[in-house]
Amino acid sequence: MSEFETVGLFGKPHDARVISTLRTISRYLQKRQCTVLIDRALAPVLKNAGERVAISTGLARRCDLAVVVGGDGTLLAAARTLAPAGVPILGINRGRLGFMVDVAAADARAALDDVFEGRYVRERRLLLSAEIHRGRKRRGSFLAINDVVIRSQAAVRMLEFETWLDDEFISQHRADGIIISTPTGSTAYALSSGGPVLHPGLEALTLVPICPHALSDRPVVVGCDRSVRVVLGGAQRVRAMCTSDGQRNETLSPGDGVVVTRSEHVLELIHPENYSYFNILRNKLHWGRERFYSHD
Amino acid sequence: MSEFETVGLFGKPHDARVISTLRTISRYLQKRQCTVLIDRALAPVLKNAGERVAISTGLARRCDLAVVVGGDGTLLAAARTLAPAGVPILGINRGRLGFMVDVAAADARAALDDVFEGRYVRERRLLLSAEIHRGRKRRGSFLAINDVVIRSQAAVRMLEFETWLDDEFISQHRADGIIISTPTGSTAYALSSGGPVLHPGLEALTLVPICPHALSDRPVVVGCDRSVRVVLGGAQRVRAMCTSDGQRNETLSPGDGVVVTRSEHVLELIHPENYSYFNILRNKLHWGRERFYSHD
Amino acid sequence: MSEFETVGLFGKPHDARVISTLRTISRYLQKRQCTVLIDRALAPVLKNAGERVAISTGLARRCDLAVVVGGDGTLLAAARTLAPAGVPILGINRGRLGFMVDVAAADARAALDDVFEGRYVRERRLLLSAEIHRGRKRRGSFLAINDVVIRSQAAVRMLEFETWLDDEFISQHRADGIIISTPTGSTAYALSSGGPVLHPGLEALTLVPICPHALSDRPVVVGCDRSVRVVLGGAQRVRAMCTSDGQRNETLSPGDGVVVTRSEHVLELIHPENYSYFNILRNKLHWGRERFYSHD
Amino acid sequence: MSEFETVGLFGKPHDARVISTLRTISRYLQKRQCTVLIDRALAPVLKNAGERVAISTGLARRCDLAVVVGGDGTLLAAARTLAPAGVPILGINRGRLGFMVDVAAADARAALDDVFEGRYVRERRLLLSAEIHRGRKRRGSFLAINDVVIRSQAAVRMLEFETWLDDEFISQHRADGIIISTPTGSTAYALSSGGPVLHPGLEALTLVPICPHALSDRPVVVGCDRSVRVVLGGAQRVRAMCTSDGQRNETLSPGDGVVVTRSEHVLELIHPENYSYFNILRNKLHWGRERFYSHD
Repeated sequence: MSEFETVGLFGKPHDARVISTLRTISRYLQKRQCTVLIDRALAPVLKNAGERVAISTGLARRCDLAVVVGGDGTLLAAARTLAPAGVPILGINRGRLGFMVDVAAADARAALDDVFEGRYVRERRLLLSAEIHRGRKRRGSFLAINDVVIRSQAAVRMLEFETWLDDEFISQHRADGIIISTPTGSTAYALSSGGPVLHPGLEALTLVPICPHALSDRPVVVGCDRSVRVVLGGAQRVRAMCTSDGQRNETLSPGDGVVVTRSEHVLELIHPENYSYFNILRNKLHWGRERFYSHD
Repeated sequence: MSEFETVGLFGKPHDARVISTLRTISRYLQKRQCTVLIDRALAPVLKNAGERVAISTGLARRCDLAVVVGGDGTLLAAARTLAPAGVPILGINRGRLGFMVDVAAADARAALDDVFEGRYVRERRLLLSAEIHRGRKRRGSFLAINDVVIRSQAAVRMLEFETWLDDEFISQHRADGIIISTPTGSTAYALSSGGPVLHPGLEALTLVPICPHALSDRPVVVGCDRSVRVVLGGAQRVRAMCTSDGQRNETLSPGDGVVVTRSEHVLELIHPENYSYFNILRNKLHWGRERFYSHD
Repeated sequence: MSEFETVGLFGKPHDARVISTLRTISRYLQKRQCTVLIDRALAPVLKNAGERVAISTGLARRCDLAVVVGGDGTLLAAARTLAPAGVPILGINRGRLGFMVDVAAADARAALDDVFEGRYVRERRLLLSAEIHRGRKRRGSFLAINDVVIRSQAAVRMLEFETWLDDEFISQHRADGIIISTPTGSTAYALSSGGPVLHPGLEALTLVPICPHALSDRPVVVGCDRSVRVVLGGAQRVRAMCTSDGQRNETLSPGDGVVVTRSEHVLELIHPENYSYFNILRNKLHWGRERFYSHD
Repeated sequence: MSEFETVGLFGKPHDARVISTLRTISRYLQKRQCTVLIDRALAPVLKNAGERVAISTGLARRCDLAVVVGGDGTLLAAARTLAPAGVPILGINRGRLGFMVDVAAADARAALDDVFEGRYVRERRLLLSAEIHRGRKRRGSFLAINDVVIRSQAAVRMLEFETWLDDEFISQHRADGIIISTPTGSTAYALSSGGPVLHPGLEALTLVPICPHALSDRPVVVGCDRSVRVVLGGAQRVRAMCTSDGQRNETLSPGDGVVVTRSEHVLELIHPENYSYFNILRNKLHWGRERFYSHD
């Protein structure tokens, strides 16, 4: 018997290709004698398939493995409940390779054979926890897999804020906002804003200012053993927002602080044995293909 | 008698240093036999000083010259009504040199002597006109001195849009937004987003994507003899905004187009004879001072 | 009879695919009653084909049209002699689209039909002329289609130099070097160094510092009606080089100046009628294809 | 008695201000009963001062502490022999604050009091070791405090090379070269080339391509527990150079590999107790001072 007895399935209910792949996987898992759990939202579209329906947090608690079919965004959303429950995730894409959904749907069966026969790699990625401090009150904490973004929402864009590493003052900034990104998130919004690619094995965060008013306000990479604190200027008239993974939002007021620390949870990803992070990076960033000039 | 008989004064009414400088300038101008016009907002704080009060558009229509005391933002706001009326502007800063308010308050008197005795440089800068197209309807057109910015306002940030140069398709973009900047605006928000510095004498615009999802989506500089059109994707769920100079906003809907052309108006700036654009640039960007390493 | 009676053929003699395409084109031109001229280097490989052999400058003087088969680098090299002689160029690529060699070999015949029947677009691009000033002596002037690059050649990399726009001081720099690029060159080395894309219709140059020691030392775009001067610091111990188009080099000494002006010559390109600059840019830069993240 | 009995002095012999500071420090140390060692090059200019003269490697072996007066470049050069000998370094600048020479000459006496009375911070920074592989032969290994740079030296600039992380292929590159930088070096050449700032406590390296031909070829940060290998293309005709810290050079041939690993040595810096890395960064990068625009 495999170590994965109970498997949860995740995917967008309104995408026919996703559902078709999920149905195939569900049958496969049932043949493997697994208990297959699905979310209520998937129940109507996966019906007659022998799966058990559960609500999301309970589902996460009961799984030994989660299979997510779709894009990186789908995996991010599912990981929010799966990571705190310690459930490892196998990501299967529906056509377009993702950074985390790295198995093609066509290879799903072979990948599952490998996983159930122990031929896989388990990767642990650090996550962030963000807490909002207003005076003595603390709101949060919420989990981020990619990034915590503090950003103005108004048309007059500029935020003034300070950054701190524990009790050490980093700098004062004027910018549209700032991204605090994990290595996983370093290839998402942080990359758009000029941040570096951080290898996922790195125990580090990057602070990437968004459209800073000073050209010297460059991305900084720090270890994740200390907290990063962003404090909004007290005289701000602009509306600011703290967003994690582009999915969960909290409104910020002048003087608010956002404290970002390493989460006690990790994201556990299951990869085929031949997995290579740089292979995916080369594919996603078109490395080696885009070359805008030559001397021939 | 000078060519400048009627002079308008502009500045923020709530800044004591600005008011003090304006008062000195007003007295100077009255000695020069000028008619001095001020906005209603300034009347209570400049009272007993012999100025005539006018409302803004009328004021602009009657001036031969405007003196703006404050920062670049104050000049931008005043220029919105002054430029369409063809009034040249002399900018005086209150301590911090600006790109356009290039005369120090301490040098204001000498600068005015020079201006009234014909020792000055007149510089003409191109402006933009933006019009919003929704189906067959057209809203606008509004004036931009620095830039027209199309940007998502929501927490889920990404906009999908196309750019066109007249009827030639430029590209499809996924980004937080895009900046269409004049040479004047090239040292403002566009510079924060990775745009180049455009010499103010250049008859060109720059298109600078904000946090694009593709690293190859780089700033493009085009001539200002053709229109630039930005068309929002029709399936957008995000709220977008079109902002000119960070001061005037229009909400955009899916499918809306923003058409940016060279304005029929220009911004006319009056400079001391020793004015050098690059001198100001060196000052503002700390050129020649910031050097982060050396081999000594 | 067409306006193009005498046509020169250009291409690398050692590339079999290039030669094969040239042979086909030569036959086509002879059927069109054209006189076909080739360089001595091509004579041995194109023999028996009825072409006349000429040496390069004479060849350029006698052509009404040049057809270049190969990459952008081949076209650059040929354009060095063709542009001063005022010969328009049709560029045909051997598989990989170039910025200037924009006709695929497979479409060569159809493109030639169009050209000889008057269905084509003629595009004129500005070129640069560089002159080296040492004390009162002047060396040069040499022609640049893409760029003039001043760069240290030594292991201790840093150059100190000043930049001037006519007699107006721009700035002092510490960097590996600087690129002065035409719009044509803006998608070559200048883009690698963080420069913007300049539309080829723009009458402008861009100055792009290479690895500057100050983060505020950003690319600047200026009109091409004034000269750009780069003056090396007098106390330089490092070896510097002035290179045009990566093909022609001149050694520089401390105190030397490089004066770059608009050339009296232009590069004339012949394009199919459906030519679109942005279409090529989208292809070369993978616009719309590379997208490193999504929220699905 | 202090833990620092034997102290080595370092500085450029031809700089009068450096010599004057060194003389003061030498007297101070002798009052503290320390044995003061100096290099032969300093002997003629520091004569009659009671110091003992030693040759560099022997000097390093006998010191308990080194005091370097000058710039970061002077400290880098001294650290090449001091780090392998495990000697901690106190850096004193002559006017211009450095990243590592963080004590002002005016504060040297107070700083030395603190150090000799135990009020100091000891910081350990990781160093790199580079080895050149040619076929089965290995040259090197040489030490780098800031960076190992592989770069073309020729006028035709482009290098083709591959990068590997241990046996995992990273990517193929076309660029002027590549920088492999420590956290210490991240504020030097790597920053000029678009790299991020790495906090010195981070156990990581950054790979920063120099003027890459693909816009997606972005800086990558990896842990320092694995080796980074750069392999030059075998068909390279260009001359390449491997340089450590801009001070030591090795010529490279086609097919050569440069293997960079964490050095067994570390750089030990002695700081005053109130030392803050970000304080120095703010000073050096003009953080909070350069602001190119505002909305006032």
